[in-house]
Amino acid sequence: MSSKILIWLDGSPTTTLPLPDRGLGFGDGLFETFLLSRGHALFTELHFDRLREGLAVLGMPDCVLEARRHLESAANAISQEGWTWAVLRMTITRGAGPRGYAPPENPSIRILVEGSQIDRDCLQMSSAANVSVAPIRLATQPMLARIKHLNRLEQVLAASFRHAEGADECVVLDQSGHVISVIAGNIFVVSQNKILTPRLVDCGVEGTRRRIIIEKWAPSIGLDVSEAELTLTDLDNADEIFYSNSLVAVRPVATLGKNSWDHYEVCSALFQQFLEEVA
Amino acid sequence: MSSKILIWLDGSPTTTLPLPDRGLGFGDGLFETFLLSRGHALFTELHFDRLREGLAVLGMPDCVLEARRHLESAANAISQEGWTWAVLRMTITRGAGPRGYAPPENPSIRILVEGSQIDRDCLQMSSAANVSVAPIRLATQPMLARIKHLNRLEQVLAASFRHAEGADECVVLDQSGHVISVIAGNIFVVSQNKILTPRLVDCGVEGTRRRIIIEKWAPSIGLDVSEAELTLTDLDNADEIFYSNSLVAVRPVATLGKNSWDHYEVCSALFQQFLEEVA
Repeated sequence: MSSKILIWLDGSPTTTLPLPDRGLGFGDGLFETFLLSRGHALFTELHFDRLREGLAVLGMPDCVLEARRHLESAANAISQEGWTWAVLRMTITRGAGPRGYAPPENPSIRILVEGSQIDRDCLQMSSAANVSVAPIRLATQPMLARIKHLNRLEQVLAASFRHAEGADECVVLDQSGHVISVIAGNIFVVSQNKILTPRLVDCGVEGTRRRIIIEKWAPSIGLDVSEAELTLTDLDNADEIFYSNSLVAVRPVATLGKNSWDHYEVCSALFQQFLEEVA
Repeated sequence: MSSKILIWLDGSPTTTLPLPDRGLGFGDGLFETFLLSRGHALFTELHFDRLREGLAVLGMPDCVLEARRHLESAANAISQEGWTWAVLRMTITRGAGPRGYAPPENPSIRILVEGSQIDRDCLQMSSAANVSVAPIRLATQPMLARIKHLNRLEQVLAASFRHAEGADECVVLDQSGHVISVIAGNIFVVSQNKILTPRLVDCGVEGTRRRIIIEKWAPSIGLDVSEAELTLTDLDNADEIFYSNSLVAVRPVATLGKNSWDHYEVCSALFQQFLEEVA
């Protein structure tokens, strides 16, 4: 990945954020990670649906129209860079405000867009991943589950462990030891020709690719996805495991602890659905 | 409170933060809120002890020496403004980094200091507070409890409710309904000449004033503080309730739901200890 980053704040190129900002102060905001193919953002409606949901949960004004406009102009600029693949992170904060936790009644939302190139060819399915289990468990917080807010220290600590382990990803559990996701994506288990994925009630992020797998890609290959309570034992006994996020679409798991898998039929068939969608 | 804010980044005056920054991206950092009396920061060692603890939990380099230096020069600048009382928020972030959750191995820590004037005379005990109960409960996350990190959406949502209710503060509970704190401070209950305060295992922030009350102020007035599991019923039956934070030192509670209190002997005696400390 190139180290060049293009940044816009509320549509204007910038390299800095005005202070104070509640996104920095309290993580008071949301983000979305868009994959761009030749300057064209993919699955934008899924991202904006989740963003709208997050804005409602945090009691922030609905700024999806502006977000859409800023995404479009950033995507145009990126297509002029000639980047085949790019990732564009959009961060929405509640802007400035008086000191203290209470949000201002009429906040001036800030929309920050950071774009960078991806060197990898996203039309090739990623190699099967070596996965560990993160020691930090996700907090029980039903009021903030599913949305993609800026409070991500759990993911930072888990990713720090992943890096130290040399793993590609980590499974993360909730406080009672149920499987919730990987650090940066949702997890799926194939068992007896069924696809299972964790129910996201108390924690976890409702991924855009998770949603399209459930609603479209899995049905298209003749499989249903059920939400379930999953344990590490269910993962050990799985016929196949894969995870999803906006950058890889779906990626198979090769190893988890002492277990290994070498066939990824369902994951490959779902990746084929992604390819047809993008073509 | 004046709206003027003085801001320094790594010791230099600024109005902006360079991007990208992991504090904004993930809440990857910590903060401290210092009270300044005529440009002199109070109880700095308690703040730096907690900061050091937080840096260790997040796996960030120990930057307490630099933090101390930046606090001192900000305090000098504030004393030249002639502000009698000021609040100084210090935000420490893991700085820039490549895309994604994993922290860089050798981060360039950023130390941001934001100072503003307080109009109130902090040598007067705050009037007794009207307190509600926040609908959002604190997440169960033992790995992030006690430290003052930047992931504060729970406090933002609780403060938004507090503001809508017109309350001065809110009691916040954990997921099993035990009392943990108020939104911006620790809570104490006086019952049969004993002071009780919640144990902070799964959530809550270990306040600097909570620590000095336990270690010094309460013993000085002949009372011990015990950590306990407290419910709202314990609060209803309390002889006295008060809370602590760096801005008020201690503040008595006048009403909580249908209950009211009109004598604040213990809180007043502790505030007297604060005054002797500051004199």
